[in-house]
Amino acid sequence: MASYLITGASRGLGLELARQLASLPVSEVSKVFATARGGSPGLEELAEKSSGRVVVVKLDVTDERSIKQAAVEVEANLDGKGLDVLINNAGIMQYSPNGVNTMDNLTESFTSNVLGVHWVTRAFIPLLQKGTLKKVANISTTVGSIALARSWHLMPAPAYKITKAALNSLTVQYALDYEKEGFAFFALAPGWLRTDLGGENADLSVEQGAKASLEKIFGAGTEQNGQFLKVLVKGWNQYDGINSPW
Amino acid sequence: MASYLITGASRGLGLELARQLASLPVSEVSKVFATARGGSPGLEELAEKSSGRVVVVKLDVTDERSIKQAAVEVEANLDGKGLDVLINNAGIMQYSPNGVNTMDNLTESFTSNVLGVHWVTRAFIPLLQKGTLKKVANISTTVGSIALARSWHLMPAPAYKITKAALNSLTVQYALDYEKEGFAFFALAPGWLRTDLGGENADLSVEQGAKASLEKIFGAGTEQNGQFLKVLVKGWNQYDGINSPW
Repeated sequence: MASYLITGASRGLGLELARQLASLPVSEVSKVFATARGGSPGLEELAEKSSGRVVVVKLDVTDERSIKQAAVEVEANLDGKGLDVLINNAGIMQYSPNGVNTMDNLTESFTSNVLGVHWVTRAFIPLLQKGTLKKVANISTTVGSIALARSWHLMPAPAYKITKAALNSLTVQYALDYEKEGFAFFALAPGWLRTDLGGENADLSVEQGAKASLEKIFGAGTEQNGQFLKVLVKGWNQYDGINSPW
Repeated sequence: MASYLITGASRGLGLELARQLASLPVSEVSKVFATARGGSPGLEELAEKSSGRVVVVKLDVTDERSIKQAAVEVEANLDGKGLDVLINNAGIMQYSPNGVNTMDNLTESFTSNVLGVHWVTRAFIPLLQKGTLKKVANISTTVGSIALARSWHLMPAPAYKITKAALNSLTVQYALDYEKEGFAFFALAPGWLRTDLGGENADLSVEQGAKASLEKIFGAGTEQNGQFLKVLVKGWNQYDGINSPW
């Protein structure tokens, strides 16, 4: 009977997470708040077929006022109950194909990938404190690992790498601040997925990525607080389920 | 006969780095470009006594136009020579004493500590490419280490921690992009210093911190490219000169 909120649920991993959560029994998932900046036919369709379990909420992670408004809406819908799990999934990947010195999108990436997560998290903390599970999954990537940077050098997305490293640090700051209250804040690398963001040459289907991500989220508890989790997918050495270095 | 440029040289570590560099023989340090946003009596005095070796340059790391203008000035002063060493020292530490969820200074910290370093670096890259040493030291801190976050939890400066983690990632992106040209880009933790930023209860005097930082900068070569260096100060276990984890 847990409730979930997922940002960036208009498409890609966010939409698929909402879909898979909504396919589980009501005894496991009571409600899925699926937030999106604009309209999304896929999400609208999912909500319509969900008998009220999937609730579409307008939320733009780059606009703190819209986030606060969304929190008011979600609170009203929860009827006095708390929110159990927050999945900060919204994010952007921007390229600088001619090298880091030509990067002119760092602020924009920072606003979506770091500041937006901070704003969303603090807006929903009061509802999460009333919840029973107290989990916050921040969708990150091993591409954001500074220790692994050399492996990803040929991927021309420095703003993405830098802001995901910052997101990892933000995640740990929240983890330490809310540890005493029994929260589990963690960064989660869902793998390289065939979405608009990941492209068609990616390793895994979005269904595989969402399934493996949910397994990590379901399994995470206070022991995983402040950790950098990575999905486990059979047959893939790089998705071995072992925590990533920062 | 090496030339140096130091940002944030109006006071603290930046001013002391300029002072110590200017005290070395001309055969070792030919010129020190000491940049500052506004006026600084200490820096002006140092420049006056330096017989032209210390050149004060107006530069605000939060304003890319002022950075580009500074690069034009420095180029003119170098008379066709390159710049040998860039020390990105300017930075700010902002507090959120009531926890990360109250943090409202993340964008400001990001602009100074990450975006400013990016802008300064790319503005001076052409002069550094003409230089003989090709070193870029980004002044960081072990407080920005995500792996060590638990040790620093009681220090209520999440925006500082998060933006220094992002700076570390930025440093590594530059290191990988410029490795083939023989550059050494590194993050350097100078220790906790008794400056306006560090406060009076800090471990080391600014003289100790600057001396130990310069030893690391002098000793760094291509082997240190992309690394997270930490100063070595005798008698201090925490300043053991061993690289910090990210």
